[in-house]
Amino acid sequence: MTIDRLQALLAEFAAERQWERFHTPKNLVMALTGEVGELSELFQWLTAEESSAILDDPTRRTQVEDEVADVFIYLLQLADVLRIDLLAVAEAKVRKNAQRYPSDIVRGRAVKSSDLDRNARD
Amino acid sequence: MTIDRLQALLAEFAAERQWERFHTPKNLVMALTGEVGELSELFQWLTAEESSAILDDPTRRTQVEDEVADVFIYLLQLADVLRIDLLAVAEAKVRKNAQRYPSDIVRGRAVKSSDLDRNARD
Amino acid sequence: MTIDRLQALLAEFAAERQWERFHTPKNLVMALTGEVGELSELFQWLTAEESSAILDDPTRRTQVEDEVADVFIYLLQLADVLRIDLLAVAEAKVRKNAQRYPSDIVRGRAVKSSDLDRNARD
Amino acid sequence: MTIDRLQALLAEFAAERQWERFHTPKNLVMALTGEVGELSELFQWLTAEESSAILDDPTRRTQVEDEVADVFIYLLQLADVLRIDLLAVAEAKVRKNAQRYPSDIVRGRAVKSSDLDRNARD
Repeated sequence: MTIDRLQALLAEFAAERQWERFHTPKNLVMALTGEVGELSELFQWLTAEESSAILDDPTRRTQVEDEVADVFIYLLQLADVLRIDLLAVAEAKVRKNAQRYPSDIVRGRAVKSSDLDRNARD
Repeated sequence: MTIDRLQALLAEFAAERQWERFHTPKNLVMALTGEVGELSELFQWLTAEESSAILDDPTRRTQVEDEVADVFIYLLQLADVLRIDLLAVAEAKVRKNAQRYPSDIVRGRAVKSSDLDRNARD
Repeated sequence: MTIDRLQALLAEFAAERQWERFHTPKNLVMALTGEVGELSELFQWLTAEESSAILDDPTRRTQVEDEVADVFIYLLQLADVLRIDLLAVAEAKVRKNAQRYPSDIVRGRAVKSSDLDRNARD
Repeated sequence: MTIDRLQALLAEFAAERQWERFHTPKNLVMALTGEVGELSELFQWLTAEESSAILDDPTRRTQVEDEVADVFIYLLQLADVLRIDLLAVAEAKVRKNAQRYPSDIVRGRAVKSSDLDRNARD
């Protein structure tokens, strides 16, 4: 399976159901939000340790896999309607982040780029 | 570029910055939420038509590509720490959805599976 | 200050800027998503303990107060355009939850109502 | 009903179920995310017009009221554990926004404050 093949499957799935007209970028972003919300619900009351072990429970494993899949599916559909190459933009962003968060400055610290920017402007 | 290669790059990026301890599944789900929120902000006031044309504006294009990339990046990291195969679970979910939403029943209608379930139980 | 007075202030604020046409329920839900995303970003890398002490840091206090305010503001505007009485629906929901989660059954356990429903159906 | 009274009811509700230990600020932000996700799902495939008329359908009305209530409930609990006065911070934010978005500059235009900031720095 590849990203391209999945996107083709999803396009076919939507076409068979005449769902293309619902799949505007705006609507797909909302659908993505819904799925991230469902994923959050599986983790919201867990400690960090419980969250790391969540797949040990077979019921939770199925739920997490389903929600992770749903998030990915809507992201693939969004990228498809916008004609964005997911792998290319992610690679470009990783390189941008490497410059934005120099390892000697941020090592071991959780930082937001807006905080770094603020410091840089000071 | 491939998913595996991107996940390796991201793991290396996090290791160099000693950020692995922040990357619990729970924290990564919250980070995913943050990025989906930023993506939503780009679309929130747009009409459906404007949302379809958003990439025609070079500034918006860069912003959308960056946010889509960020969502994908956190999803890749989440899948990596959970040892979930993104392509495999997405393919399985597409097949499950094909059964859950029979095209002759849902054609042209936006439905939620919970609504179908409710009808099925009635 | 009261909820009604805040909603009146916000309606006036939007009218002065001719922003009413942007404030459809759908758009306001997306705006709410954006603000919850910004709130999440403030908490995503924190431990539970750090999250409880977040307001001790003056910079973080301002950020958290601002984001909590933004979430509330969009919720007030959403309720206003939908003509939903926030206090009334919340009170009704608390009573519904009291029945849905009997204290003798759920005491000390984090549960999702969908899990309770599943058990109830078994 | 008032915000204070609702917060007292919710605190009592959580205490009876011994759920206080789950209600860290971090966890409540995730719970808020989950509810905003459920709210999004009700609106994701609707046009702007359909979203404005959503309460005309009695089933949808109950669903929307329930989800709006859930978002408000978690926001009230979050504000309570953080000792944030919701009405006060919202009022302060409205005043801050009035300065940030001068009506003569933003009239009729949807703007993000980050865009205004960018222009201001240019």
